[in-house]
Amino acid sequence: MTLKRFFIILLIFQLSINGIVAQQLLSPDKNMALTFSLNDNGIPVYQISFKNALVIKKSKLGFILKNDENNLFDNFAISNTETSTFDETWQPVWGEENQIRNHYNEMAVTLNHQKSNRQMIIRFRVFNDGVGFRYEFPEQDNLGHFVIEDEKTQFAMTGNHTAFWIPGDYDTQEYDYTESRLSEIRKLMTNSITDNLSQTTFSHTGVQTSLMLKTDEGLYINIHEAALIDYSVMHLDLDDKNMVFEAWLTPDVKGDRPYMIAPAITPWRTIIVSDDARDILASRLTYNLNEPSKIENTSWIKPLKYIGVWWEMITGKSSWAYTDDLKAVKLGVTDYRKATPNGKHGATTEHVKEYIDFAHKHGFDGVLVEGWNIGWEDWFGHSKDYVFDFVTPYPDFDVDELQEYAKTRNVQMIMHHETSSSVRNYERHMDKAYRFMKDHGYHAVKSGYVGDILPRGENHYSQWMVNHYQYALEKAADYNIMLNAHEAVRPTGIARTYPNLISNESARGTEYQAFGGSKENHVTVLPFTRLIGGPMDYTPGIFEMDISKLNPDNHSHVNSTIANQLALYVTMYSPLQMAADLPENYNRFLDAFQFIKDVGMDWEKSVYIEAEPGSYITIARKEKGTNNWFIGNVNGKTNRVSNIKFDFLDNDKVYIATVYADAKDADYKVNPQAYIIKKFKITSKSKLSQQSVAGGGYAISIFESNKTETKSLKKL
Amino acid sequence: MTLKRFFIILLIFQLSINGIVAQQLLSPDKNMALTFSLNDNGIPVYQISFKNALVIKKSKLGFILKNDENNLFDNFAISNTETSTFDETWQPVWGEENQIRNHYNEMAVTLNHQKSNRQMIIRFRVFNDGVGFRYEFPEQDNLGHFVIEDEKTQFAMTGNHTAFWIPGDYDTQEYDYTESRLSEIRKLMTNSITDNLSQTTFSHTGVQTSLMLKTDEGLYINIHEAALIDYSVMHLDLDDKNMVFEAWLTPDVKGDRPYMIAPAITPWRTIIVSDDARDILASRLTYNLNEPSKIENTSWIKPLKYIGVWWEMITGKSSWAYTDDLKAVKLGVTDYRKATPNGKHGATTEHVKEYIDFAHKHGFDGVLVEGWNIGWEDWFGHSKDYVFDFVTPYPDFDVDELQEYAKTRNVQMIMHHETSSSVRNYERHMDKAYRFMKDHGYHAVKSGYVGDILPRGENHYSQWMVNHYQYALEKAADYNIMLNAHEAVRPTGIARTYPNLISNESARGTEYQAFGGSKENHVTVLPFTRLIGGPMDYTPGIFEMDISKLNPDNHSHVNSTIANQLALYVTMYSPLQMAADLPENYNRFLDAFQFIKDVGMDWEKSVYIEAEPGSYITIARKEKGTNNWFIGNVNGKTNRVSNIKFDFLDNDKVYIATVYADAKDADYKVNPQAYIIKKFKITSKSKLSQQSVAGGGYAISIFESNKTETKSLKKL
Repeated sequence: MTLKRFFIILLIFQLSINGIVAQQLLSPDKNMALTFSLNDNGIPVYQISFKNALVIKKSKLGFILKNDENNLFDNFAISNTETSTFDETWQPVWGEENQIRNHYNEMAVTLNHQKSNRQMIIRFRVFNDGVGFRYEFPEQDNLGHFVIEDEKTQFAMTGNHTAFWIPGDYDTQEYDYTESRLSEIRKLMTNSITDNLSQTTFSHTGVQTSLMLKTDEGLYINIHEAALIDYSVMHLDLDDKNMVFEAWLTPDVKGDRPYMIAPAITPWRTIIVSDDARDILASRLTYNLNEPSKIENTSWIKPLKYIGVWWEMITGKSSWAYTDDLKAVKLGVTDYRKATPNGKHGATTEHVKEYIDFAHKHGFDGVLVEGWNIGWEDWFGHSKDYVFDFVTPYPDFDVDELQEYAKTRNVQMIMHHETSSSVRNYERHMDKAYRFMKDHGYHAVKSGYVGDILPRGENHYSQWMVNHYQYALEKAADYNIMLNAHEAVRPTGIARTYPNLISNESARGTEYQAFGGSKENHVTVLPFTRLIGGPMDYTPGIFEMDISKLNPDNHSHVNSTIANQLALYVTMYSPLQMAADLPENYNRFLDAFQFIKDVGMDWEKSVYIEAEPGSYITIARKEKGTNNWFIGNVNGKTNRVSNIKFDFLDNDKVYIATVYADAKDADYKVNPQAYIIKKFKITSKSKLSQQSVAGGGYAISIFESNKTETKSLKKL
Repeated sequence: MTLKRFFIILLIFQLSINGIVAQQLLSPDKNMALTFSLNDNGIPVYQISFKNALVIKKSKLGFILKNDENNLFDNFAISNTETSTFDETWQPVWGEENQIRNHYNEMAVTLNHQKSNRQMIIRFRVFNDGVGFRYEFPEQDNLGHFVIEDEKTQFAMTGNHTAFWIPGDYDTQEYDYTESRLSEIRKLMTNSITDNLSQTTFSHTGVQTSLMLKTDEGLYINIHEAALIDYSVMHLDLDDKNMVFEAWLTPDVKGDRPYMIAPAITPWRTIIVSDDARDILASRLTYNLNEPSKIENTSWIKPLKYIGVWWEMITGKSSWAYTDDLKAVKLGVTDYRKATPNGKHGATTEHVKEYIDFAHKHGFDGVLVEGWNIGWEDWFGHSKDYVFDFVTPYPDFDVDELQEYAKTRNVQMIMHHETSSSVRNYERHMDKAYRFMKDHGYHAVKSGYVGDILPRGENHYSQWMVNHYQYALEKAADYNIMLNAHEAVRPTGIARTYPNLISNESARGTEYQAFGGSKENHVTVLPFTRLIGGPMDYTPGIFEMDISKLNPDNHSHVNSTIANQLALYVTMYSPLQMAADLPENYNRFLDAFQFIKDVGMDWEKSVYIEAEPGSYITIARKEKGTNNWFIGNVNGKTNRVSNIKFDFLDNDKVYIATVYADAKDADYKVNPQAYIIKKFKITSKSKLSQQSVAGGGYAISIFESNKTETKSLKKL
């Protein structure tokens, strides 16, 4: 149960700026200040300051409507202002901590559009760590259905900040991040747009959220959105003369933005602010702006550590497809029994049993299998409507036999639903597909949305598709199924409301390490950007960095050390974590693999020890229900010594710490498998000075111990 | 069971025309001749003659493919020709007769595209009453997925024929027919495009199929298609210099034509030909080119005569909506209990009971109720996604109570699913909606597709939507539900394969008589055009032609006499027939209403006595399982005397004929309710000479009798 206090107090100050009356709302700790006013044209304007320094300059708010002379932009008058404060602590089903405080002051300004007598409310919530605001359209006589042509929300920057950005795109977030000044975005855009199987960019200065910014004064600013429901994704387009970002909503096939029906609300627009980068990682503002769980009984939602028949296909060592005979597949017509197996099919009964055995031996919860169902021979690139049925296995994959085999070994099978972005087809088969899962012991599904969307002309991030992902999520909840959607819309904290959304991809994941590689500091950016909205199924744990060892035709290199790969299980929070490499590679490094086996999956507490976007992140986390701690450090582009204290440990306890670190001569390019493992006795007074190489890092497991066990160990 | 004979014989003649070898295939009676050849460029060419007169001049065949240099158009060589003959007689579940003969000679020409080594088969079937041909793309190495940019199928006319046409349109067929020379289409097009709630025309010479043509030599030609499955609707665009029609497929949102996967087939392109217009009506070619029923047990499919809470809304006397309070409705949010009823809502429990009582009293099978479910307040014009849920009744409509009430009166409720063309929403709710029907005693559903399609940008007749209608039909079959889809694609004989498709609208129905009226000869055209593909739920039976009597604000006039309305139950074949007017209007004319009560719904035999498109149709039908006959005559634009014989009656029997005819002074505009009813004794030797006024007609019921009963009757 949550502790909830709710009362109305006078929170706002009336200010007079340039003769216009402004209203100011402070955060509970009074460090964050939101000022709201109407300008001379009746346009709503806000600004944000933190510790008396401007963060967001005067920025406009509102909408241009389609085929409607009465835009909800100018000509407003304030008709009412209500303020309140809210403070509760809630318990997430899973998360980086087991208690989340949701504490903010709120101001709801009711605006009256004078020409049309329409009402619009802008609701601001000011937290100690940032600001959220959304638009609300109450039920009213003069506003029913309306179509947004443009959302005019601005975020006016105070200078030419450093940004960690990816190109604005209606279909993908699978880009490497570019670190640059705002003024450099335009010239760096073309090179930042790397190939993707579905992509639609829109502007030379368009970027995606969550967008991470740093000012020359050392302020960290993160712009994103929360609770994206029945609306389209907000990108940001930069006016790089004035350094003003403006919302750029993903349009539908006809170029329209969201279709709205009053009463309606928009997603929250969020600005997380701190002078300490660690606070950005620690912020729960995005979750706090989402509704509490709508799933009453959540006992079936459980973190999962898994392996899978996946990396071998990603690298090209094996194939999703069963045969190379077929030019095209017609489900229900094509007879696979007549086709010659290609000898490379990954998802065979025998091979999956090997994975189950490995999972069983090493204590993994689940085994994901991709390429188990018919249709992979022509699944991509044909805009194929009836591409998969999600229930018919290939001839060499025995669902029942594997269900039984996994069950007796206490391992669960994890389902895979690649939709090929043929969304009507997926919705048509969804009930049967989910029912099939329940009938065969699958409790979690990885879904995929590779390629251009069907219905043709829609994009991955349009309202139509946002609505679809939500439909799939809610229907999964009806079946008590956990969902991990790939290539779907990036999360916006919706997992608070539907905690069966246990992970997402929606960014450049580990797979790109087999497609040419990602930047060595990529994982020092993701927690500041993609993970602001929710966990990522990053699929870490690659031990063999030379992909040609798996597939002679693939010369990609994994830009990471093994120690860095281990650290990801801590730094890239997800209740669903994969050990993505092949069992044969883990068998070569079982001592390092031990960390993946040990590492916790669900957390009581997280301590953000060090953090700087693009450079380094060090996080310590205490496992829920144990006294075990795990630390991960990922390092950026240069060698670095990480100095940390263990003062978060219990004062009265002694622990064994096992440090998995880059060896002195480790190098993410030429010597990535050079790691050292050291064991120490530590207490809350211990300190560690540990070098990480570029693209490297370290991982530490910390188990409570007694004197006998630690007698032989050196003290750190 | 069907009688089937199948054997291969030499059917084709090798002809040499202009030095090119042509292959000729004759109909079983040898009157129809199809000639096929390749021209100098390797383009497939066909022509058709009937009784040695050319019907279709040399016309090209083939396809332009999208982004593919190897079009399937020219550069062909013939690699194989197979001929066969087929003769079977099959029994439709319902129909104009209980035995249908399917007798044709077939020629399948395998063409090899020499540059790409791709195979395409053109399969011709020549019947005594016409020709059907389709394209087939066998499974092959060089052709898998492909997208059709243009189908090049031509129908080259032999002259400037008279055509009965409606404008080519991707969204509607709800137009009045224009009768004109082909050369006049261009100048008459603009006036022929009347307003519709969703319409997309494409060419000044584009027309729809089925297209009815008449030559100056007295040949009747009908062009349509059969078995439209997973393809887009074919329209025809006229080159009016050369009088050549070419196929114009409905594009998708991106302008593409069907997405194909070999092995694949196209729908059949059909040309029905005769020198007697009655043969066009009697042709079963369209059904014969469809596959036999895929529904094994069809015992649940039964013709239905019904009334409904419908005409009162169409005329504006009452409303579908429950309240006028709501600017917009959000299903699941809007609380109807707080809304004020508008006092005009048609679908109230009490009012529906009156309809059930009337149906019970007069022996109707069912009662259709529209506007029973929430959402009608803003159902149209907003491109609203979640517009209906198909299961939640308005507060004043008690589903359970009415189910019980209807059951005890031996009347079935007929469901209504207006989709507002929000097709994703309908598919999402379809299982629940059909389940709801089964749980509440509904066996048939009228579905509607008013307005522009969602997914936005798609059209009613694109492959995407054709695929949807088929999905809804097949899923209905799974639930043993009969379907009557309105505003859907016009039928192409698919009811043979899925006989639960008991009717369709897909043309300008009776409702337009309340929207300004239709041409007085409209119903003399429809059986030659729209009904070629399957039955129409025309909803006849209007007795009050002055709509202002129902709604003072509606000044529309029904351009028809009462006698004409009665005749429609015979001339407009459908296993689903409505008596569309209000009970109160039937109560004023119970003697005429008797014909609607008496008329059969399913037929053993049909005799096409007289027919001329646009002018008159007279049909006699024998009811299945009885000796009752019913005759309908509809008349066109001028008064006419219809002279008919009754020689189809059994020689040895005496019958009572009740003639419902236009009174002498009847006039569809000023005196439409003037009818006379006469009873006669008749035999197979009787003759009738009966005047019908313009927009008028007559109906006759014929019951076998004995001498006592007929003693007092005059002999005809």
